Amino acid sequence: MGNETQVFDDSVYGRSRVAESDELKQYYQDVENMGTKAFWTVANKIEPWEPRTLSAPMLWEYDKLRPLLIKATELVSPGDAGRRVLTLINDNLKESAAACGMLFSGIQITRPGEFTPAHRHVASALRFIMEGSGGYTIVNGHKMNLGARDFVITPNGTWHEHGVAEDGQTCIWQDGLDIPMANAFEANDYHVWPEEGKGQDQLHPTDFSPLTYSGSGVLMADTEWNEPYSPLFKYSWERTYEALQNAAKVNDGSPYDGILMNYTNPATGGPVMATMGAAMQMLRPGEHTKAHKHTGSIVYQVAKGSGYTVINGKRFNWKEKDIFCVPSWAWHEHCNGSGSEDACLFQFNDLPTIKKLGYYQERVYTENNGHQKIEQ
Amino acid sequence: MGNETQVFDDSVYGRSRVAESDELKQYYQDVENMGTKAFWTVANKIEPWEPRTLSAPMLWEYDKLRPLLIKATELVSPGDAGRRVLTLINDNLKESAAACGMLFSGIQITRPGEFTPAHRHVASALRFIMEGSGGYTIVNGHKMNLGARDFVITPNGTWHEHGVAEDGQTCIWQDGLDIPMANAFEANDYHVWPEEGKGQDQLHPTDFSPLTYSGSGVLMADTEWNEPYSPLFKYSWERTYEALQNAAKVNDGSPYDGILMNYTNPATGGPVMATMGAAMQMLRPGEHTKAHKHTGSIVYQVAKGSGYTVINGKRFNWKEKDIFCVPSWAWHEHCNGSGSEDACLFQFNDLPTIKKLGYYQERVYTENNGHQKIEQ
Amino acid sequence: MGNETQVFDDSVYGRSRVAESDELKQYYQDVENMGTKAFWTVANKIEPWEPRTLSAPMLWEYDKLRPLLIKATELVSPGDAGRRVLTLINDNLKESAAACGMLFSGIQITRPGEFTPAHRHVASALRFIMEGSGGYTIVNGHKMNLGARDFVITPNGTWHEHGVAEDGQTCIWQDGLDIPMANAFEANDYHVWPEEGKGQDQLHPTDFSPLTYSGSGVLMADTEWNEPYSPLFKYSWERTYEALQNAAKVNDGSPYDGILMNYTNPATGGPVMATMGAAMQMLRPGEHTKAHKHTGSIVYQVAKGSGYTVINGKRFNWKEKDIFCVPSWAWHEHCNGSGSEDACLFQFNDLPTIKKLGYYQERVYTENNGHQKIEQ
Amino acid sequence: MGNETQVFDDSVYGRSRVAESDELKQYYQDVENMGTKAFWTVANKIEPWEPRTLSAPMLWEYDKLRPLLIKATELVSPGDAGRRVLTLINDNLKESAAACGMLFSGIQITRPGEFTPAHRHVASALRFIMEGSGGYTIVNGHKMNLGARDFVITPNGTWHEHGVAEDGQTCIWQDGLDIPMANAFEANDYHVWPEEGKGQDQLHPTDFSPLTYSGSGVLMADTEWNEPYSPLFKYSWERTYEALQNAAKVNDGSPYDGILMNYTNPATGGPVMATMGAAMQMLRPGEHTKAHKHTGSIVYQVAKGSGYTVINGKRFNWKEKDIFCVPSWAWHEHCNGSGSEDACLFQFNDLPTIKKLGYYQERVYTENNGHQKIEQ
Repeated sequence: MGNETQVFDDSVYGRSRVAESDELKQYYQDVENMGTKAFWTVANKIEPWEPRTLSAPMLWEYDKLRPLLIKATELVSPGDAGRRVLTLINDNLKESAAACGMLFSGIQITRPGEFTPAHRHVASALRFIMEGSGGYTIVNGHKMNLGARDFVITPNGTWHEHGVAEDGQTCIWQDGLDIPMANAFEANDYHVWPEEGKGQDQLHPTDFSPLTYSGSGVLMADTEWNEPYSPLFKYSWERTYEALQNAAKVNDGSPYDGILMNYTNPATGGPVMATMGAAMQMLRPGEHTKAHKHTGSIVYQVAKGSGYTVINGKRFNWKEKDIFCVPSWAWHEHCNGSGSEDACLFQFNDLPTIKKLGYYQERVYTENNGHQKIEQ
Repeated sequence: MGNETQVFDDSVYGRSRVAESDELKQYYQDVENMGTKAFWTVANKIEPWEPRTLSAPMLWEYDKLRPLLIKATELVSPGDAGRRVLTLINDNLKESAAACGMLFSGIQITRPGEFTPAHRHVASALRFIMEGSGGYTIVNGHKMNLGARDFVITPNGTWHEHGVAEDGQTCIWQDGLDIPMANAFEANDYHVWPEEGKGQDQLHPTDFSPLTYSGSGVLMADTEWNEPYSPLFKYSWERTYEALQNAAKVNDGSPYDGILMNYTNPATGGPVMATMGAAMQMLRPGEHTKAHKHTGSIVYQVAKGSGYTVINGKRFNWKEKDIFCVPSWAWHEHCNGSGSEDACLFQFNDLPTIKKLGYYQERVYTENNGHQKIEQ
Repeated sequence: MGNETQVFDDSVYGRSRVAESDELKQYYQDVENMGTKAFWTVANKIEPWEPRTLSAPMLWEYDKLRPLLIKATELVSPGDAGRRVLTLINDNLKESAAACGMLFSGIQITRPGEFTPAHRHVASALRFIMEGSGGYTIVNGHKMNLGARDFVITPNGTWHEHGVAEDGQTCIWQDGLDIPMANAFEANDYHVWPEEGKGQDQLHPTDFSPLTYSGSGVLMADTEWNEPYSPLFKYSWERTYEALQNAAKVNDGSPYDGILMNYTNPATGGPVMATMGAAMQMLRPGEHTKAHKHTGSIVYQVAKGSGYTVINGKRFNWKEKDIFCVPSWAWHEHCNGSGSEDACLFQFNDLPTIKKLGYYQERVYTENNGHQKIEQ
Repeated sequence: MGNETQVFDDSVYGRSRVAESDELKQYYQDVENMGTKAFWTVANKIEPWEPRTLSAPMLWEYDKLRPLLIKATELVSPGDAGRRVLTLINDNLKESAAACGMLFSGIQITRPGEFTPAHRHVASALRFIMEGSGGYTIVNGHKMNLGARDFVITPNGTWHEHGVAEDGQTCIWQDGLDIPMANAFEANDYHVWPEEGKGQDQLHPTDFSPLTYSGSGVLMADTEWNEPYSPLFKYSWERTYEALQNAAKVNDGSPYDGILMNYTNPATGGPVMATMGAAMQMLRPGEHTKAHKHTGSIVYQVAKGSGYTVINGKRFNWKEKDIFCVPSWAWHEHCNGSGSEDACLFQFNDLPTIKKLGYYQERVYTENNGHQKIEQ
C-alpha cells in the first residue's frame, strides 16, 4: 500500500523467531496450565511493526438511512427505546458496537413534542445536527436550542436529555460517544433521572452557555470554571463557518486538511472534552489534499458540499449529511468535488486521548505527489 | 474610611514595640555602621497591618489633554521623540513615572503619514484606541489596522512600531506598559531597529492574527503557539461589545463590576500577556455597583458613556476617553450616569502578576448597602 | 455481592425496554443490512448500570512459575525469543494477552552474560526486580544496575535492552506494559535496533539518572526536562522503603491501603509515565484494610512479607514475589498475615489514564465494618 | 566593564533625542500642570538600553555581625521586638530596607526558651540555619526541628513562629523574605496571633512534613496538595548534601555555578514558593566558575567552606556563614578557595518571579576565558 517500501521481516534479530519443537509444544502446554503463555509465541502479534488497524474504512449514506430513521419513529417511542438511535456499526467492530476504533456513532431522530428520558453516564457525548427545527438539549439544567450544523456537547457525567418543541420539525442528528472506550477501560455506567416521565428543570436562561462563553477572545471575569470540559456547550454553525472563512483569507492551511479548526474549550484552549475532540474543516473549491496517516480514529460528517475521500486506496464519495470514518493509521486524503463552492467536514475523534497517552504518530505519503493510487 | 472599624494598635503583642533608650540609640548606630538595621525599628513600617497604597486615585480628562497632544505634534516628531506620548504621572509616583502602582500609562498621538521608530523591550505594552482612522501597529511583522475602541497588544520582547496611513486621520490612543514593574525588578531594556528611518517588513498578510485567532470557540488545528502571550494581538470593539451584550442577556454580572469580561489568550484562556491583564466592563443603564477593594492596580479608560466612580470616598466624574486609576486596596464603586444608555470601561491592570505571586486579596464594603460616603 | 442493595431494573423508564415484535425483527434485519443497528437492542449491554468488569481476579504463585522460567532458559535464547518472558494471562482476556484490564504482565528471566535485543515501541514498560544480581537495563543510552525490589521504567518510545553481567546471577523480574491498551487504540508499534547482535552504546555514566534525580526535594538547576515521563528511571528499594517507614511514623495512612506511596516524576510530581502509574504500599504488622472498589486495573507484586487480599469475596493468599491482580470495580481489601513484620505490595496500574479520561470512580464498602464476607 | 564593547548612543534614531527649546520648556510646564509629562523627557531613563541595577554588590561578614546579635539578646526581647533580627541593608536600598533588589534578608537570634510571637503575612519567608541547637519553627500547626544548614520555608499567608527549646543552644539563622516586593506591589499585610503570649497549638506530629514529603521519587498516594507552595517545609542538610555529592559523580555541572540544585516542591517539581526560589550549589575543590550575568537578584549564604566571588569586577572573599548578594544583571563568578574541600553556597532569589513575568535574560562573559578582571 502506498509508499510502504519498508520490508517488515519477522525473522530478523530482535523479533521473536523461535523454531517449533516437540519439546516446546509440551512446554507451551505446561505454561498455559499455569495461567501464563510463552511471550515469544504472541510477541510479534501484539507488538506489530506498525500500528495495527482493526477498523474498516466505511461510509454511511444519509439518503439510505433517512427512511429507516423515519420508520423507527413509527415503531418505537423514545420513552421505551431510551434513545431512538440507529447505531453505525463498523464491519469489523460488531462486538463493541463501535463505528471506528473505540468511538460510537449513532443517528437519532426525534419528532415534535418528543423527548428522551434524562440520564447521565461516564461516557461523554456530542451531537452534530443534521436537519429539523425546534430541537433542544438540556445539559445539567442548561437548555440550548439547536439548529442545523450546530455542534453541542453533553460531557462526562452530566445529566442530559434531548427533545423537539411541539411546534418544531422532526430533528435528526448524529450522536458521537466514547462508549467503546469507556467499556474497554471497564468504566462506563448509567443513571436514569429519578422522576419517571419528567426531565430536568431548567436551571439557567435558555442558551446561557453560548451567550456567556462564545465571545471572541473574552471571558467573564468573575466566573470560575474547573470542570474537565468546556463551559461552552453549543458551537453555532454561523460562528464556526465565519471563523473558517476568515482564516482562509490569510492562511494556506494544512496540505492534508485544508483549513482545519478544532472546537476548543475557551477557558483552556484545549479540546472540548477529556476523551474526544471535534473539529470542522473547509476544503476550498477544487481543493484536493495530500495523503497522510496518523494514529487516532476519526468519524466525519459532511456539513456542506460534496466530494470524496480516499482511504487506504479506496475512494468514498460523499455529500452533505453522509458519515464516514478514517481508522487509525489509514492513509487518507480529501477532495472537494466542486470547483466553485467550498465543502465542510465536521469530525469527532479520539485524538485528545491518543495525544495524552503518548500514542500519537503521523506519517506523510511521499509518493505520487502525495496522492494514493485508487483501487479499481 | 468606610467599614474599617478594626483598630490597628502597634502596641499589641506581636508588633514591634521596643521602647527607646540611650543604649539602644548607640546600638542602632553600631549596627548601621555594619550595613544592617535593627529590624524592630522598621518592622511596623514595612509590614503594615493592611496593604499600604502609595498611589493616589486620579482622573485625567481627555478634553483637557487633547489640545496639549495636538500641540505636541507641532513641537516634536516621532523620529526624534521615539514616541510622541504624554505620560500620565501619578501625583505620588513621580520618580517611577507611573500612573498607578507599577503601571505606566501614556497618550500617544500620530498624524497621517507618521510612524514611530521600530523597537522592542522587555516591558510589555498594550494600546486602546481613542480616535482617528488609518492607524496601524506592526508586531513582529504582523500589521494590524486599528479603529476606535480596538484593543491591541505588543507583548514582551516583540518588535513593534505604530503609524497612521497617509490618507488616515490623526490617531490618538492610550499606551499601557509595565515599565515601572520591569524597572523595579531591574530588568527592563531597549533595542532600536537596526535600520534607521525604516521599520519592519510586513511578514504576514494584514490582520493575519485577528483573522486567524478571533474565532469563537475554535482554533486552527495545525498551529502551535508556545509564546507566553496571546496569539490574538487585536481585539475589535465590535466583537467585544457584542460579547458584553450577549452576556448581559443571561447574567446578572458582578455586584462590584456589572458585566466584566477579561480579554484572554484563546490558546490558554488566561490573560493576554504575562504581566498585565485587560478587561472591558459594561455598566447597564442606571447601574450603580457596590464598593469593594482588592490588591492590584487598575488604569481605566472610558470606552463609552459617562458616569462616575467613587474611590476611597472621593467622586471622580468621567465621560468617554477620560482615564482614571484605582490604586491597590482602594475602595471603589462605579455608577453609570445614564438611565438609558450603557457605559463601558476599558481597563488594564497588574492582576495576572498579583495573582501569580499570591498577593491577591479582596474585601467587600458592607456598610451603607455597599456604598461609600462621598467626601464633600 | 457486599453492600450492593441497589436494584438495577432494566424495565424502568430511561432504560431500553422495547418489546419484541415481528415487525421489529424485520426492521432489525433491514437496518443491519445498512451497516447499522437499532441502538435500543444493544443500549443496556453497552451502557451497564455500573462499570462492567471482564477481567477475573487472579493470583500467580511465584514458586510454581519459577521452575518454568528456569526451564525456559534451557529452551530458548533471548536473541531468538526477543525477550524470554512468561506472560501472565487473565483467564478472561486470552485474546489480548492481558493480565488485567488493558495491562500486560510477564516474568522475564536472564542468565549471566545474556542480554535481550535492543528495541523500542510506543507501549511503555516498567520492571520490578524479583531476584538475582548483576542485572542491568539500558534506556536511551542510560545504563542502570538493578537489585532486588528496585523499580525501573523504560518509557514510551525509548530504546531499551536488559541483561545480566557475566559475573552476575540469573535475574528474574516482572515486566509491566500497556501493550493491550496501545493495541486497543490501534497504536502500538515495534522497532529493532539497527545493528544485529549489538545493543546501544552507553551514552552516560552508569546510574546517571538515579544519581542525578533521586535527591530529596532538589533538582539540578540547569537541566531541562520536557519528556512526558520521569527523568528518574530507577527507584531503589532502599529509598522507597525508607520513605514508607518515615511516613508511617506520622501518618495513619489510608483505611483501604495503609501507607501507599506513588512513584513520581520528580520534575512534575505526577506519575512516572503517561499511561501507567506505580506505587508501593506498606501494610503494618497485623493491618487489615477496609474494602473499597474503584475503576482502574491493578497488578500487584508482593515485595515483602505475606498475607492475603480479598477480591470480590474471594480470598487470595500471597507471599513474597507472588503476583495478583485486582480488576476495575472489584471490591478489595488487604491483610498483612504477620503480627510482627510489615508487608509491602508493589503495584502498577492504569490509574493515570483512568483519571485523565475522567473515568475514575470509587466506592466504599460500608457493611460489616468494611470487610467482605469470604466465599467458602 | 568586561566584554561590554557595545556602544549605547542615545542620539541614534529610535531613542529620544529632542533638542531643548524655550517653547518646549514652556510646554513641559504646561503638561506637568495637567498631571502628565512629555514621555521623551524620561524615556531614555525609564527604558535603559540594558537592565539597570540599583542594588550594590555587598558582603556581610558573620564574624562581625555575631557580637551585635549577641548584644541584641541583652537589649530586646522577641516579645517586644516581634522578631529579634538584624536586617541586612543594601547601601543603595535604604528606603525599602532590602538586601538586594526586592529581597529582604535578616539575621535572627533566639536564646533557649525564647520564641517569637506567632504571626502571618502575605510576604513569604524562608530560613537557613547558621548555628545553634534545639531550634524549631511552627508553620500552620506543623512543628519542625531545625539544625545547622537546614532550609525551612514559612510560605505566604501561613501562621508561623520560631523558638528554641529550653535545653537548646542559642540559635542564629538567616531570614529571607519578599517584603520589598510585596510592598512594591502595595500588597503586604500583617496579622498577629489572637492570643497574646501564646502561640499556635501543634496540630500534627513533629516533623510531619519532612517525614511525609522528603522521600526520594515517591509521594503519599492519598494526599492532595493544592497550595501554591511546597508541602515539604524543611529540607535537611544531610539529604541536600548527599544529593549534591551524588550528582557530582556523574555531572560536570554548570560552567557558571558548578553543581547547582534547586530546592523544589515535590508535588510539582517547581520552586518552593510562588515568589522566591532557593538553591544549594557545590563548588568542587579548586573550582573557579566562569562569569555570566542575568536578571534576577540573589542573596547567598556560605553553607560550607571558603572562597571568593567576583561581582562586576570586585572580589568578595567569603567563609562559612557570610552572606553576600549578586544584583540583577551583575557579572559574577565563584571560586572555591580550597583545593581539597568542596565549598557550598546556599542562595535564595527572585528567579521564579522573574521567569514568570518574562523578565529573565542571561549573558555569558566571553573575554579572558570567562574571567573578569579584578579591580585593584
